[in-house]
Amino acid sequence: MKKDGAIGVFDSGIGGLTVVKGIMDRLPYENVVYFGDTARVPYGTKSVETINKFTAQIVEFLLSHEVKALVVACNTISAVALDTVYQLAGDIPVIDVISSGAKASVMSTLNHNIGVIATNATVNSNAYTRAIYQLDNQSRVYAKACPLFVPFVEEGLLDHPALELIARDYLNVLEHEGIDTLILGCTHYPLIKPLIRKIMHDKINIIDSSLVASEDLAILLESTGLATEVNNDRIIEHKFYVSDVPAKFQKMAESFLNRNMPLPQLVNLDS
Amino acid sequence: MKKDGAIGVFDSGIGGLTVVKGIMDRLPYENVVYFGDTARVPYGTKSVETINKFTAQIVEFLLSHEVKALVVACNTISAVALDTVYQLAGDIPVIDVISSGAKASVMSTLNHNIGVIATNATVNSNAYTRAIYQLDNQSRVYAKACPLFVPFVEEGLLDHPALELIARDYLNVLEHEGIDTLILGCTHYPLIKPLIRKIMHDKINIIDSSLVASEDLAILLESTGLATEVNNDRIIEHKFYVSDVPAKFQKMAESFLNRNMPLPQLVNLDS
Repeated sequence: MKKDGAIGVFDSGIGGLTVVKGIMDRLPYENVVYFGDTARVPYGTKSVETINKFTAQIVEFLLSHEVKALVVACNTISAVALDTVYQLAGDIPVIDVISSGAKASVMSTLNHNIGVIATNATVNSNAYTRAIYQLDNQSRVYAKACPLFVPFVEEGLLDHPALELIARDYLNVLEHEGIDTLILGCTHYPLIKPLIRKIMHDKINIIDSSLVASEDLAILLESTGLATEVNNDRIIEHKFYVSDVPAKFQKMAESFLNRNMPLPQLVNLDS
Repeated sequence: MKKDGAIGVFDSGIGGLTVVKGIMDRLPYENVVYFGDTARVPYGTKSVETINKFTAQIVEFLLSHEVKALVVACNTISAVALDTVYQLAGDIPVIDVISSGAKASVMSTLNHNIGVIATNATVNSNAYTRAIYQLDNQSRVYAKACPLFVPFVEEGLLDHPALELIARDYLNVLEHEGIDTLILGCTHYPLIKPLIRKIMHDKINIIDSSLVASEDLAILLESTGLATEVNNDRIIEHKFYVSDVPAKFQKMAESFLNRNMPLPQLVNLDS
């Protein structure tokens, strides 16, 4: 493992780009290789067996790029296929959004009442609840599936009144539970954080998994001596691979990254 | 081709079950084999090449069940992969939702102003516009993508106020164009027909592709001598195959079919 190796980041689709943005901001000298499985997105509706199979294909693809660390930027994969990632990764360190989000929430909460919003699949997996409880067995975790958030974000309707109606339905339940900390347990949700902030009480701390995963990655690279040397002459590479290129990819990616997006390369993992 | 062969019906996911319901109602003595590609749904965001590859796999699977006719119960496949279906089907007749919907709309319109609502992929393909224009070159087709309808339907929020807000945004544009006929160009939309009916002017005729495809199939079977003999002693089989079984499948299928649903069988087309 070389210090100059890239960070391998992956997701079932485009959502993981919020994590890439977090890494670009926090670790601007690191190379990044991103894989988004846009041909087979979404994973959230698929079986555990299928998700594990797809995950193994992605991890093998990223390992072939000699990455120095892996970031699981997908809550569904973190919830149901993390063992597959660790098995294949060997001694390459792994960061995942659920572990990072859970840890940050436990450090934030004062009353031990933590809310999680996520897709159906992530909520049904109980992965956040388990991860939080392992760190703080006094915690009470209230998980709420918000399945319509992703389609609204993917349509770019980030502040449509219909989204606010839906969001109030979803979030009011959590507020009534007395939570003081809310985890955005889906990589699409940072894009509607302003709306979520508007609806939730000011005193509720909102944890953005994309940011805390990038912070954990920074600490990991530093502590293991894997952080790249700061060198302004070196060209920093951000490579993006996808399994399919929908017409909207470029537009959505630029909205997620909030900057110009290089053209992603197409890779077929099936054959 | 035997009269007793089944009708092969397929879709990228669960939406095509509204077509199965149409066939069950219109042709209660016919056997049906349904394939829903639930592991790889949705197709609408995928490339034309990928959709053609997946379509070929499904058609080959259904042909191995010795079907006597094929029904393409997916607007995306009808829009971009119909040639693949015809090539593989050989002399087995094919019905598809777009041809049926287009024909019915041309028969219905008096002012030649026809509206189509569908997913982004179907609208971008221009397939309805082309199909309608081939039948009536005086027609003006107004196609409007309604990408949030599918997620609302799949969440079972068929009459949520947020859906009505979104639906009014989508549909008011079409009403202003002076259409007298509106095609529901997505197999999920029949489930929100009451809401669409409530928003659209009474004089606009709503064409349900699922129903008109079933009607076309009935006429085809009758005219080609392929209709099964009416025999009350014969056990009628409705077989359902899916490429993945999400937790919600059973519940959603029963909502689509409005009846008890047999357990679908799992088939892996990848390997």
